[in-house]
Amino acid sequence: MTDKASTSRIPLTVLGAGAMGTALVRAWLAAGHPVTVWNRTPARAEALAADGATVAASAAEAVAANRLVIACLLDDASVGAALDGTDLTGRDLVNLTTGTPAEGRARADWATARGARFLDGGIMAVPPMIGDADSGAYVFYSGSAALFEEHRDTLAVPAGTRFVGADAGFAALHDVALLSAMTGMFAGVMHAFALIRPEDIAPKDFAPLLVGWLGAMSGAAHQAADQLASGDYGKGVVSNLAMQVAGNATLLRTAEEQGVSAELLTPYMALMERWLAEGHGAEDTTGVVELLDLRRGTDT
Amino acid sequence: MTDKASTSRIPLTVLGAGAMGTALVRAWLAAGHPVTVWNRTPARAEALAADGATVAASAAEAVAANRLVIACLLDDASVGAALDGTDLTGRDLVNLTTGTPAEGRARADWATARGARFLDGGIMAVPPMIGDADSGAYVFYSGSAALFEEHRDTLAVPAGTRFVGADAGFAALHDVALLSAMTGMFAGVMHAFALIRPEDIAPKDFAPLLVGWLGAMSGAAHQAADQLASGDYGKGVVSNLAMQVAGNATLLRTAEEQGVSAELLTPYMALMERWLAEGHGAEDTTGVVELLDLRRGTDT
Ligand SMILES: NC(=O)c1ccc[n+]([C@@H]2O[C@H](COP(=O)([O-])OP(=O)(O)OC[C@H]3O[C@@H](n4cnc5c(N)ncnc54)[C@H](OP(=O)(O)O)[C@@H]3O)[C@@H](O)[C@H]2O)c1
Ligand SMILES: NC(=O)c1ccc[n+]([C@@H]2O[C@H](COP(=O)([O-])OP(=O)(O)OC[C@H]3O[C@@H](n4cnc5c(N)ncnc54)[C@H](OP(=O)(O)O)[C@@H]3O)[C@@H](O)[C@H]2O)c1
Repeated sequence: MTDKASTSRIPLTVLGAGAMGTALVRAWLAAGHPVTVWNRTPARAEALAADGATVAASAAEAVAANRLVIACLLDDASVGAALDGTDLTGRDLVNLTTGTPAEGRARADWATARGARFLDGGIMAVPPMIGDADSGAYVFYSGSAALFEEHRDTLAVPAGTRFVGADAGFAALHDVALLSAMTGMFAGVMHAFALIRPEDIAPKDFAPLLVGWLGAMSGAAHQAADQLASGDYGKGVVSNLAMQVAGNATLLRTAEEQGVSAELLTPYMALMERWLAEGHGAEDTTGVVELLDLRRGTDT
Repeated sequence: MTDKASTSRIPLTVLGAGAMGTALVRAWLAAGHPVTVWNRTPARAEALAADGATVAASAAEAVAANRLVIACLLDDASVGAALDGTDLTGRDLVNLTTGTPAEGRARADWATARGARFLDGGIMAVPPMIGDADSGAYVFYSGSAALFEEHRDTLAVPAGTRFVGADAGFAALHDVALLSAMTGMFAGVMHAFALIRPEDIAPKDFAPLLVGWLGAMSGAAHQAADQLASGDYGKGVVSNLAMQVAGNATLLRTAEEQGVSAELLTPYMALMERWLAEGHGAEDTTGVVELLDLRRGTDT
């Protein structure tokens, strides 16, 4: 332990002591890394001094303190605001602030133009999971592969790491794609709970059934990926689109019987019907992905 | 095996030799049960004679052949059509036809009035999973607990069994609730694939990330159940509604950047915003379930 601390626990700076920044700082401190922290509102950074962090008086001072600089702020605009006027020459900037792919790419260009190497990150975890190796928490990284390789062990301290490409926008894209899929799943879960709510069915008895079913059915994404890769939406079909559209009627009638609004389900059902009307009834549903493309038909 | 066959493998009738009926018949035949089968279009039933099934010339003859009668037809109307004019006195009718809770209840009353015991079922599987003990396939049952207990072993042959209550509508309700949640999840999955589609990201590399994330996050349904049971939507909140609504903006901007329609996500986001506007920003999102209740505020 002592050996490792003296040889490999490099010092680093964290900009941002919000809920997530604080969790990150604590995880690195706990692993023996010297951490300099800065926060716009000083009180939040000062609270970390008790844990062993060095508090910087300004972002410029924090950036000057260490080569490895982690930003975990509210949004991309706050990253620009915090780093404005700091000297990034020779720094390794790792941006763990949630943003869009375009923001990640623009921030990479901006940082590179200021003499820094840049890595964007998308945190797939909530603060209580940070620093807990068993939590399954991980971070998507994209941008400078050299930066990632050099700091890989340090980056792996608060959460697992997944490098997804040199395109600095890819971390955000992966992050947002998973969050978007989760949003759809949660919409379905809320509809399901609304359906059972008028009845004498305990939500706690129902939840394990729901979780088991969603876990089993999420595997269909592998088949969808296979179909998207080959462009053959008819590959390995078990329940074709026509059957699924027919089945949707039962879902809608049940919602009506239970006095539940079907607003969370109808857009996907409408999309399935549009794809069916285009003649894809014997295929799987996967082809609806094409209908979501707003540029469809504009570049042929 | 021989002992068991002679003592406990009771004969039964299956009405319907569609994709699912055929799978059911084959599973029971494979387990040694004598099966009488009827199908409106005789050819589909006759194909099962080679597997050892006895083919009945009419539904009435099929119903007369055995006490235990399984119906697996297109929809509830086809069950009514097939059983019209048959003598159900003393029969144990198990309806594995997908329907709504109200159809299940009405069919139970109808069957009971004709002297039968009645069990409704909702099959949580596709035909290739039937008869495969490792597939995870199961059937929700509700209605006559006596019928279920008596035929439990026989019913367990094609798929696992879960009795969910004496209310004959509960099997359909559980079935449809899980299918509805899955519909939401698939909508989210399609949106996620649409987001990565314009990029050089292999769907097959992305799918495992998606499946892992959805599996991990589906566990949130346990917390939602806990909150619904207690009515306290603020219990154990990690990411409150206000934060989640703020985060939705990133999801929408990313969709726009990627040229993807957000139509599958916006209804749930709008619902979250309505609940936020009602003052629930510090709570979890679970309370939106109340907004889906079309009878909300009408019976106070
Ligand atoms: N919390 C989560 O569950 C979670 C999960 C995954 C990813 N993330 C991401 O992690 C990042 C930080 O989230 P958080 O939960 O720590 O948020 P938070 O608790 O609200 O903290 C926000 C941080 O941003 C700072 N900030 C805001 N505007 C600023 C500006 N104009 N200039 C300088 N600093 C500014 C705040 O400083 P003040 O203290 O001065 O306001 C604070 O340090 C976000 O991008 C979030 O999306 C969070
Ligand atoms: N396949 C699945 O993946 C799946 C999964 C879960 C649940 N289910 C449920 O299982 C049930 C059967 O599905 P399936 O896949 O077997 O469907 P299917 O292959 O389309 O077969 C439909 C069956 O219903 C019969 N039928 C239709 N209208 C009728 C009428 N008016 N009178 C008498 N018989 C009639 C058909 O007879 P003909 O041959 O004469 O047309 C055929 O036997 C449905 O309720 C379905 O929702 C299916």
